[in-house]
Amino acid sequence: MAAAAAARRGRADLEIVALEKGAFTSYSACGIPYLVSGAVEDPEALVARSPQEHRDRSLIDVRTRHEVMAIDLDAHRIDVRDHEHERTYQLGFDLLHIATGAKPIRPPLPGIDSPFVHGVQTLDDGVRLANDAASAALSQVVVVGGGYIGLELAEAFKQRGLKVTVIERDDEVMPSLDPEMGSLVGGAMQDIGIDVMCDCSAAAFEPPASGRGSGEVVLSSGQRLRADLVVLGLGVEPNAGLASDAGVATGVRGGVEVNRRQQTSVDGVYAAGDCCTSFHLVTGEQVYVALGTVANRQGRVAGINLGGGYATFPGVLGTAVARVCSVEIGRTGLTEAEAARAGFEVDTASIESTTRAGYFPGAKPIAVKLVADRNSQRLLGAQIVGRGAGSAKRIDVIAVAITAGMTAAELLDADLGYAPPFGPLWDPVQVAARKLAGANR
Amino acid sequence: MAAAAAARRGRADLEIVALEKGAFTSYSACGIPYLVSGAVEDPEALVARSPQEHRDRSLIDVRTRHEVMAIDLDAHRIDVRDHEHERTYQLGFDLLHIATGAKPIRPPLPGIDSPFVHGVQTLDDGVRLANDAASAALSQVVVVGGGYIGLELAEAFKQRGLKVTVIERDDEVMPSLDPEMGSLVGGAMQDIGIDVMCDCSAAAFEPPASGRGSGEVVLSSGQRLRADLVVLGLGVEPNAGLASDAGVATGVRGGVEVNRRQQTSVDGVYAAGDCCTSFHLVTGEQVYVALGTVANRQGRVAGINLGGGYATFPGVLGTAVARVCSVEIGRTGLTEAEAARAGFEVDTASIESTTRAGYFPGAKPIAVKLVADRNSQRLLGAQIVGRGAGSAKRIDVIAVAITAGMTAAELLDADLGYAPPFGPLWDPVQVAARKLAGANR
Repeated sequence: MAAAAAARRGRADLEIVALEKGAFTSYSACGIPYLVSGAVEDPEALVARSPQEHRDRSLIDVRTRHEVMAIDLDAHRIDVRDHEHERTYQLGFDLLHIATGAKPIRPPLPGIDSPFVHGVQTLDDGVRLANDAASAALSQVVVVGGGYIGLELAEAFKQRGLKVTVIERDDEVMPSLDPEMGSLVGGAMQDIGIDVMCDCSAAAFEPPASGRGSGEVVLSSGQRLRADLVVLGLGVEPNAGLASDAGVATGVRGGVEVNRRQQTSVDGVYAAGDCCTSFHLVTGEQVYVALGTVANRQGRVAGINLGGGYATFPGVLGTAVARVCSVEIGRTGLTEAEAARAGFEVDTASIESTTRAGYFPGAKPIAVKLVADRNSQRLLGAQIVGRGAGSAKRIDVIAVAITAGMTAAELLDADLGYAPPFGPLWDPVQVAARKLAGANR
Repeated sequence: MAAAAAARRGRADLEIVALEKGAFTSYSACGIPYLVSGAVEDPEALVARSPQEHRDRSLIDVRTRHEVMAIDLDAHRIDVRDHEHERTYQLGFDLLHIATGAKPIRPPLPGIDSPFVHGVQTLDDGVRLANDAASAALSQVVVVGGGYIGLELAEAFKQRGLKVTVIERDDEVMPSLDPEMGSLVGGAMQDIGIDVMCDCSAAAFEPPASGRGSGEVVLSSGQRLRADLVVLGLGVEPNAGLASDAGVATGVRGGVEVNRRQQTSVDGVYAAGDCCTSFHLVTGEQVYVALGTVANRQGRVAGINLGGGYATFPGVLGTAVARVCSVEIGRTGLTEAEAARAGFEVDTASIESTTRAGYFPGAKPIAVKLVADRNSQRLLGAQIVGRGAGSAKRIDVIAVAITAGMTAAELLDADLGYAPPFGPLWDPVQVAARKLAGANR
């Protein structure tokens, strides 16, 4: 819908049809955990713009519950299934934009399709899960996967007063962080009262016997965990089958390949969001990053180009932030492990500081890790784990510094704001930069 | 003390004597409002390192209650008054570092030296003010001057449950912001229950008759405000008399002139902090900026050079943040007015957004203003006023962007972090950047 709206701003005369399999448009998928926790009560609150608003304001012919079944690139035609009226029809196009998003990874394990195992991707999924979460019969939830979504959903169920266990295949939760930073997150989650089991994967799911009572998650170790409800947080993969079946080229992780203008391998066909790949700003390599910010920006770029304008997508750093109860997490650029895989030799600095001046009420510990190229000293990435407010979004400062090609010494020289409620005199980010710069001067 | 400690790290063999008129070293002057409010109870909590710690850890011969009365640059000698033992002595030096700080501006108005009129600069001042603030006899406080210090102290007294009036000579509080942003701060302060009177200056102070009861502040308009206690928040000026009397060159606002290494006009004499001037990163001009971050950084640079190393101070953007009750304020670089004075023609963009996703509980309004050079589109400055947590420190993102010479379009392209507890999908900073970039594309 970001693309459709941008295309409309570019060209008033385009006929724009938007086909959506579900019932909602332009909603915040990132808000689903807060629907599940009850912090947000009405699913409609997550909808930034309804189908009718798109029709009225942007003259976009939005058709919900309409699913595209196939694309014929030679004939410039798509097959559409109207689930509402149970009919199928064909639609021609001059320009096509593919924004089919991602789908939760569901490994082929026994019982994974039972109704008590939930994947969470669409708002429809979120509404179902929120309804289940509010059910009085629930007491024990198992979250499979300790990434962002897994941990945010763990918090949501914790907020509901339920017993929550997170199982994570890797050594530490948050595999998008280096292990020692993930360990800080895991420790903080334990302190909050969420059970975290690492080095641990699910082998099978046994649903409640009669649809009532508790089911079980069977671990690879043979151990069994009682579970009234299971949520999959194993990450997502591109929902790009429609595009690839039609002959559009795909790349990393099966995502639709696009150039800087979000053009696919096929003339007149664009793609954006979780169904396609991106360029990484640091490595220059093609990557698959499924994030709302990236999707929305790519959509806007595609839409400007679809509308006859000129826009390019600048690439990603994979900047992400999350809050799990009082724990805040931020990351940008490359982890130490990712940098090594990309061929960099790195210097790193890890520091502990506080979110406010040490003497200020409510000051909490914050850990910052910086990763820089050993030769050029250019910053490559950063990770933040804090125990209180004001931690995660400090990552943005480093994201801009990386974008600008700054070294740790240059970040150290930046004139950042200070007052006791916001941090120590030397911002934690700059304490880390000072340590990293000092290691080489 | 930052300079002394850095010099020690550089050279183990230096004999380092530090002379301090007051009783404390290395304290957070920015923490004084929180001492006054009672949020911080023990003045010692504001002391990062005591004289004894400096002696023990850095082998610095710290002499408190010792005041330097005169500097003889030819003889390489200073006159020192030991207030503790009421004696005067002379001390020779090879290298001299001047860090005499700032003093509150006290216009020569009738009654300004009465004991009920407080200036706040040193921790000793802070302790006196905190004691007075805790006195049960107090009910009405007048703060003269609506800048950072004035507003932070207004909050402090408000927290004590007192009636607080702020009087400000300019049209709006926070004259370091453009008027329409200052107006947002003024409005928010009114909502909090702090009286704000703009276009209003004090003409005289009439102390309580017998040292008991209320005094009065007489305004230029003739109006009288009852006041049990008056605090001056009219800003500070360099405390550079000692240096200039000795023949050290001074510049803007009378501050000690220094080069990039914090060297003064006299060989072997350094200066840092609120007593000296700085370079502005955007205009390249000499400016006077009295901020703890700048002072500490300059001290570190001076100390490295004093210790035989090489360091330069990169210049300032005047980045500053403040919290007044729930209102957060941030600014960096040039305001629209400052840019005009520096000769820039500018494009600006002002937007309103929210501190969290709009649907997320606790989302509060945040206003962001960006200022850019009309020709190069480079960002020159920014201002933020928010009604809730997470507002002010967003200024750091823009400070780094300005340091890197970014345009609004480049800031818009940066990959910032997003999750509903931290902001809308498009960060308010980027909503402003988009508006500014859009105006020119």
